[in-house]
Amino acid sequence: MRRPSAGGEANVAVSLSNFGQEAEFVTALPDNDIGQSAINELRKFGVGTKNILRQGKRIGIYYCEKGAAQRPGKVVYDRAFSSVSESRAEDYDFERIFENADWFHFSGITPVLSQNCYDVCLKMAQYCRKKNITVSFDLNYRSKLLSLSQMKELVLPLLEYTDVLIANENQAEQVFELRCTEKDEYARNRETAEKLFSAYPCRLVALTERRTFTADRNGIFSSLYDGKEQVFSRRYDMDMVDRVGGGDAFTAGLIYALKSGKSLQESAEFATAASCLKHSIQGDFNRVSVEEVEALVRGGTGRVER
Amino acid sequence: MRRPSAGGEANVAVSLSNFGQEAEFVTALPDNDIGQSAINELRKFGVGTKNILRQGKRIGIYYCEKGAAQRPGKVVYDRAFSSVSESRAEDYDFERIFENADWFHFSGITPVLSQNCYDVCLKMAQYCRKKNITVSFDLNYRSKLLSLSQMKELVLPLLEYTDVLIANENQAEQVFELRCTEKDEYARNRETAEKLFSAYPCRLVALTERRTFTADRNGIFSSLYDGKEQVFSRRYDMDMVDRVGGGDAFTAGLIYALKSGKSLQESAEFATAASCLKHSIQGDFNRVSVEEVEALVRGGTGRVER
Amino acid sequence: MRRPSAGGEANVAVSLSNFGQEAEFVTALPDNDIGQSAINELRKFGVGTKNILRQGKRIGIYYCEKGAAQRPGKVVYDRAFSSVSESRAEDYDFERIFENADWFHFSGITPVLSQNCYDVCLKMAQYCRKKNITVSFDLNYRSKLLSLSQMKELVLPLLEYTDVLIANENQAEQVFELRCTEKDEYARNRETAEKLFSAYPCRLVALTERRTFTADRNGIFSSLYDGKEQVFSRRYDMDMVDRVGGGDAFTAGLIYALKSGKSLQESAEFATAASCLKHSIQGDFNRVSVEEVEALVRGGTGRVER
Amino acid sequence: MRRPSAGGEANVAVSLSNFGQEAEFVTALPDNDIGQSAINELRKFGVGTKNILRQGKRIGIYYCEKGAAQRPGKVVYDRAFSSVSESRAEDYDFERIFENADWFHFSGITPVLSQNCYDVCLKMAQYCRKKNITVSFDLNYRSKLLSLSQMKELVLPLLEYTDVLIANENQAEQVFELRCTEKDEYARNRETAEKLFSAYPCRLVALTERRTFTADRNGIFSSLYDGKEQVFSRRYDMDMVDRVGGGDAFTAGLIYALKSGKSLQESAEFATAASCLKHSIQGDFNRVSVEEVEALVRGGTGRVER
Amino acid sequence: MRRPSAGGEANVAVSLSNFGQEAEFVTALPDNDIGQSAINELRKFGVGTKNILRQGKRIGIYYCEKGAAQRPGKVVYDRAFSSVSESRAEDYDFERIFENADWFHFSGITPVLSQNCYDVCLKMAQYCRKKNITVSFDLNYRSKLLSLSQMKELVLPLLEYTDVLIANENQAEQVFELRCTEKDEYARNRETAEKLFSAYPCRLVALTERRTFTADRNGIFSSLYDGKEQVFSRRYDMDMVDRVGGGDAFTAGLIYALKSGKSLQESAEFATAASCLKHSIQGDFNRVSVEEVEALVRGGTGRVER
Amino acid sequence: MRRPSAGGEANVAVSLSNFGQEAEFVTALPDNDIGQSAINELRKFGVGTKNILRQGKRIGIYYCEKGAAQRPGKVVYDRAFSSVSESRAEDYDFERIFENADWFHFSGITPVLSQNCYDVCLKMAQYCRKKNITVSFDLNYRSKLLSLSQMKELVLPLLEYTDVLIANENQAEQVFELRCTEKDEYARNRETAEKLFSAYPCRLVALTERRTFTADRNGIFSSLYDGKEQVFSRRYDMDMVDRVGGGDAFTAGLIYALKSGKSLQESAEFATAASCLKHSIQGDFNRVSVEEVEALVRGGTGRVER
Repeated sequence: MRRPSAGGEANVAVSLSNFGQEAEFVTALPDNDIGQSAINELRKFGVGTKNILRQGKRIGIYYCEKGAAQRPGKVVYDRAFSSVSESRAEDYDFERIFENADWFHFSGITPVLSQNCYDVCLKMAQYCRKKNITVSFDLNYRSKLLSLSQMKELVLPLLEYTDVLIANENQAEQVFELRCTEKDEYARNRETAEKLFSAYPCRLVALTERRTFTADRNGIFSSLYDGKEQVFSRRYDMDMVDRVGGGDAFTAGLIYALKSGKSLQESAEFATAASCLKHSIQGDFNRVSVEEVEALVRGGTGRVER
Repeated sequence: MRRPSAGGEANVAVSLSNFGQEAEFVTALPDNDIGQSAINELRKFGVGTKNILRQGKRIGIYYCEKGAAQRPGKVVYDRAFSSVSESRAEDYDFERIFENADWFHFSGITPVLSQNCYDVCLKMAQYCRKKNITVSFDLNYRSKLLSLSQMKELVLPLLEYTDVLIANENQAEQVFELRCTEKDEYARNRETAEKLFSAYPCRLVALTERRTFTADRNGIFSSLYDGKEQVFSRRYDMDMVDRVGGGDAFTAGLIYALKSGKSLQESAEFATAASCLKHSIQGDFNRVSVEEVEALVRGGTGRVER
Repeated sequence: MRRPSAGGEANVAVSLSNFGQEAEFVTALPDNDIGQSAINELRKFGVGTKNILRQGKRIGIYYCEKGAAQRPGKVVYDRAFSSVSESRAEDYDFERIFENADWFHFSGITPVLSQNCYDVCLKMAQYCRKKNITVSFDLNYRSKLLSLSQMKELVLPLLEYTDVLIANENQAEQVFELRCTEKDEYARNRETAEKLFSAYPCRLVALTERRTFTADRNGIFSSLYDGKEQVFSRRYDMDMVDRVGGGDAFTAGLIYALKSGKSLQESAEFATAASCLKHSIQGDFNRVSVEEVEALVRGGTGRVER
Repeated sequence: MRRPSAGGEANVAVSLSNFGQEAEFVTALPDNDIGQSAINELRKFGVGTKNILRQGKRIGIYYCEKGAAQRPGKVVYDRAFSSVSESRAEDYDFERIFENADWFHFSGITPVLSQNCYDVCLKMAQYCRKKNITVSFDLNYRSKLLSLSQMKELVLPLLEYTDVLIANENQAEQVFELRCTEKDEYARNRETAEKLFSAYPCRLVALTERRTFTADRNGIFSSLYDGKEQVFSRRYDMDMVDRVGGGDAFTAGLIYALKSGKSLQESAEFATAASCLKHSIQGDFNRVSVEEVEALVRGGTGRVER
Repeated sequence: MRRPSAGGEANVAVSLSNFGQEAEFVTALPDNDIGQSAINELRKFGVGTKNILRQGKRIGIYYCEKGAAQRPGKVVYDRAFSSVSESRAEDYDFERIFENADWFHFSGITPVLSQNCYDVCLKMAQYCRKKNITVSFDLNYRSKLLSLSQMKELVLPLLEYTDVLIANENQAEQVFELRCTEKDEYARNRETAEKLFSAYPCRLVALTERRTFTADRNGIFSSLYDGKEQVFSRRYDMDMVDRVGGGDAFTAGLIYALKSGKSLQESAEFATAASCLKHSIQGDFNRVSVEEVEALVRGGTGRVER
Repeated sequence: MRRPSAGGEANVAVSLSNFGQEAEFVTALPDNDIGQSAINELRKFGVGTKNILRQGKRIGIYYCEKGAAQRPGKVVYDRAFSSVSESRAEDYDFERIFENADWFHFSGITPVLSQNCYDVCLKMAQYCRKKNITVSFDLNYRSKLLSLSQMKELVLPLLEYTDVLIANENQAEQVFELRCTEKDEYARNRETAEKLFSAYPCRLVALTERRTFTADRNGIFSSLYDGKEQVFSRRYDMDMVDRVGGGDAFTAGLIYALKSGKSLQESAEFATAASCLKHSIQGDFNRVSVEEVEALVRGGTGRVER
């Protein structure tokens, strides 16, 4: 597992490490105490940090107000001019980074941070394709960062090198202008997956669905589509503790499941249960183990274990 | 906006200030650091404090135990002998207080604190009627402070000068001995509004309804009645963070809506949505903006904005 | 009220003291500042502590991770070699402990801590039978502490001296190998009570039921069976604050109700309402009063009292 | 040990209980949850509370801003109309309160709270004199509560029944208008003790001295004078954690030492060391044991014990 | 009082407002919730905020690690691209800002943030000179922000319009290359003041001195020199709570003293005592009143007031 | 760097890792979430954890009450039956542990935990002697854990394999019954070092000295003696934040200095300055870098860096 960049990818790396996978986070951080703190936090969970560049002037931050009941959470981004957004492709030692790697993951937030970041993602994806390293890409569209048309323009060239595409069903429809006609949510999901797959063929399309009842209560489920078969996971309605990182937890669960040789159905269940559990944990990181995810897949209910 | 007094009115002033309205809080506070802290907290939200008297010996306080699940919250009042309850009508400079004012609001807690407070409220209401300043009055009955019959006796003379009467439907029935016959909650609300209006005519009667499922989960809706038309707001079921100040948030929303020229239906929706959002916020003050209230009116669900 | 030992029994004693009963906690604690802190915490609620032994090397502890949503809570026990588990029957002055006592309660966790603890519980139960002191026993099986067959072996001899047996319906079926055939939960509960009663006759069997929707949301109800009549309590669905001590709160409510001469139905309602309220309180202790429990029995909804 | 009233006396009772003495606190508290919390806090430390009256409307409070460096701490009192200040001598059952008592202590703050409080203190002191119960009185003058001349007028009649008088040297000079001529602090202390003793003879005069270097750093020492001999304690310069209750800790140490048959010199050392240790503890209560005080008397330096 | 900009000047404005002066803070803040929070914090203390621009992308921040004992505190700046550093002179409405103003203060951190900031400061200083508004300038050199030679180049043109120059004695020597020869600290201070005054004549030079014994313990004193007379303040050795804002507290004290018509000596005492008290307060703002500063000037020691 | 065991050695490893050294911590921890948390905390600072055994039943803990002023801190140990104290020499894979290692450090607390621990330490020390790996041993005597004579008996055989002996001067005198005659502290330190060296020859003896003025204020210095030359470090008087781990910080500083080829004098200064800085940090770990230690050696005073 190798991945460049900022934020969501760190969450994926930590979760994979908690699943017993060797994972490494690749990014650029300023050479000061704040950058070091970020590295220490990753090391705590066993994530590899030796390919993190120490350069540039600042670490990107965001201010986050947690929502509750009918009041939505809010995010104020302050990521411009961060070390990673100013790092260039030539700053990274691709050979060293991808030595012994079998998977490369990046999220859609990263290539839209700056032209530099875009180049890094594109070149890494191309390099991985050449080296037969699986590439996964989480669309992760944020309307506060750029418009739909900008997003589309940036994203299309990246899809060419993507093996596993992960997207929120709703965003996928919008970004790729799929104009679905189905009303039923499962049928619509299937239509989206098929249209997406025929337009931008890859190995697997994962579509996540989120129903926002209130800021504290969401429902989730997901589908996987490999061009032949589409499977749907169980649905979870959740009284959430913290929803940040729920999507990254899904991604980590999916990568783990696919690498472990689980079937398509098992993979959808594992990834969705992993995501569900993340929503019960304060902070960005999914701290659960494989055993905890599998207990939920088997039908856990949150009864105290003693 | 001018209002005298203790507690709930401060919440209304802060919320109105957060809605971009010029609001001032009129009360009496001891001339010590505790009184100053209270003033600073109001200034933080832009509320005018220049007509606050600095006299008397103590600030009224109350002890509050938050409820949860089937356990109700509890309040222990310690308001006797407070600066405001001992201040007299002649201590206040009516001319200066109501210069340029177009609205005067007070809550039913204030006139029942002491005979002095009662006189202040009555004289200010009379003054405002004379000066053509709109007077709103929130019944706000607390059984721990006095009995139903005492409440009735105190409140009736005040109604004569009230333009906008705000009351909890259930309390209104009891305080005004309306003996409604309807069973359906909407029909009963209508009956209450009509009976109230015919007995104590004013410009507008706002009746709020609260369903207490548990200490953490309440449902609310409201009606407005102007003698001709009655409108009902949308209902909100809420996983509450803090219910203190929910009624004051309604009042502030109503005043804002009426002053902004919204229709009766729009006003009911705005005021109720404002109240709903308050329940998601820790502390007495409603910190939301007009935009946030309107987003909920338009159908917001608490999905994080990013 | 006299009871030996570790943990759950302390919760029962505190709750009984909050109900205005004279209660004493009997255990062994190390003669250091940590042992003294435990005693101080009990004294705070008026629990008698004069028969607590100050000996041995350590206080048993456990690490507790609170669950949320679909993630179950977790407990890591660290109770081996604790003062109480190493104390012997001869260390306790039975005459002094049970002077003026009319009730002795112990929980199933205590006799399984060590052979010593087992002896203490058995001998105290035998002593109480001889002295006509009522003995209540809460099965309280923890699979992390020992196996079902071990549990059965240990527990059976204790039942001979038990007047009031309290058990989770599900655990009762397993520990006593009752092999119930009913599907409906009430019928199954009845079958369990009857089978239990005919095999191990005592004065009263209390069977509690817990439905775990999620880690934060449980439903509870209970039954009482005296060999003639079986009564069921109201059901409570709860958004829980802390579920630790919910069973002990039930036991305390039951002991209080029985000692106060309440009917079987009233006792089931009181005990279950007491347990329900505990789930709304952070920490092990049930801090509510008799009045608060009775308000819930009469139909309270958690509306703030003011 | 029996003592009526508000604040400082509770600190003395807690400290005496921590020294293994049987101590009881006598006061009046409102019959609500706030009053009960105060009682629970006392029970935690083993202080007797069965003679506390539950009547009146409120508990007195004060707001406290902690000082630091050159910035002094500040206190805003809000004690008027408290339960204790409105309780009358006839509310207290003297027979029951002083049954088996051998010592009665009160502080100068209590008789100045109200005429009622004054009567209670005077009558209790007279009762104790008649019953041969030792009476100690801590002058404890607060200029924010009343003037020097008022203080003098109130205090003189109480001295007639005082066996052990405790006073800050500086306040003693002012309240009793002693007009000392000595410049050296020890000589001045001696002169104060002698003048005081000849004017108002009692069994023992304890004079404490405090040097305020900064808000965090004070020096203390004390003297005892029995009409024949005067002894001085060691001096302690302290980096303080919390200075509230330092005087009460001295009083408790003195009572303990005198009741344990320590010599005059030993008593001065014990009381002053007890006071010194209190300054290292957050909160009003002195939590140290006899052993800890004696370790400091023997020359402890604060080296960690392990 | 009017001042533009970022950080230190806000501290000065808050302190002046706490001294009862009308003060306004002029800066640029992003038009988001973070910018609004900053404004609310200023309003809390009564500082005028109506001339604050709401534009640009971010608020400058810094990370601060508090020192202790021999370990120095650390600051990591993240101020680049902030709203204020990108605001231009033409964004500010000089007429409106300086209407009725009699004093303009800025700190040396502001003009070095960016060329834009430099222009704003220079033009405002020029405007004030023309309008006869007193200009004070606190050198406030930070070696982490720029080199000594850069500092000199930037600062010299500003001095031309400075009426009151405030500087740390040590920094003054370095920035202005004064090459003092005296060894005694008072003589050296005098030499610095005289050299500075003859090279860059203004109305008053204030030189502050700080002795850093440890991170928690500093000594301070200061001098004022008006070309004729030099006065020195009392020295204060302080066990500090928080040293950030100590210099700004001096400035506010000095401005208040000069505007109140205090003598040179009184002004030095007031400003230094104000600075001393700030070191006892957590956070950047000096919360003390004129009375508290004057009590320290008169010889206060931090004894609790009660 | 390799070291087995419990507590102090972890502090040494973390500090060495913060100095840029590769360090590994060898111990046994239970295979549960608590054990994993301990490992995560070590990984955060980059300490190697791959040779930590996951076995046994519990992690040793201790309760710690922080001292202040004249009140000493207190420690209550609860370490019996911990995983490490029950682990046996054959559980550890010496070959793998010491592969590429050049230094082995252990503290005197470890061999006294149990006979098993003693065997592990002795055998590892013997193994290292054979493999030419430097062995350092910190005497670290705790009177609460065992008597002086027991300590002596256990420690002597270990000295045979010790290259670098670290001891508190005072404890060294007692444990080794040196009966020094000098009065001056430096002369006495010299005498101790010489006597120790002649009785138990090794490569280097480090003697630390601690003066306990109060619980918050200590003075430290140290000496190094290699049989020929003795050097003394600068003295530091410290207002301490947390003194736990001060000795381990010295050890880590010494190991770093010796491995970096610093002179004897430089090593004493580096180790003592490292220890000094630890006292300014909350928690057991010394978080400072080589640069921060060297800044203090060069004469730092705690002035904020900005």
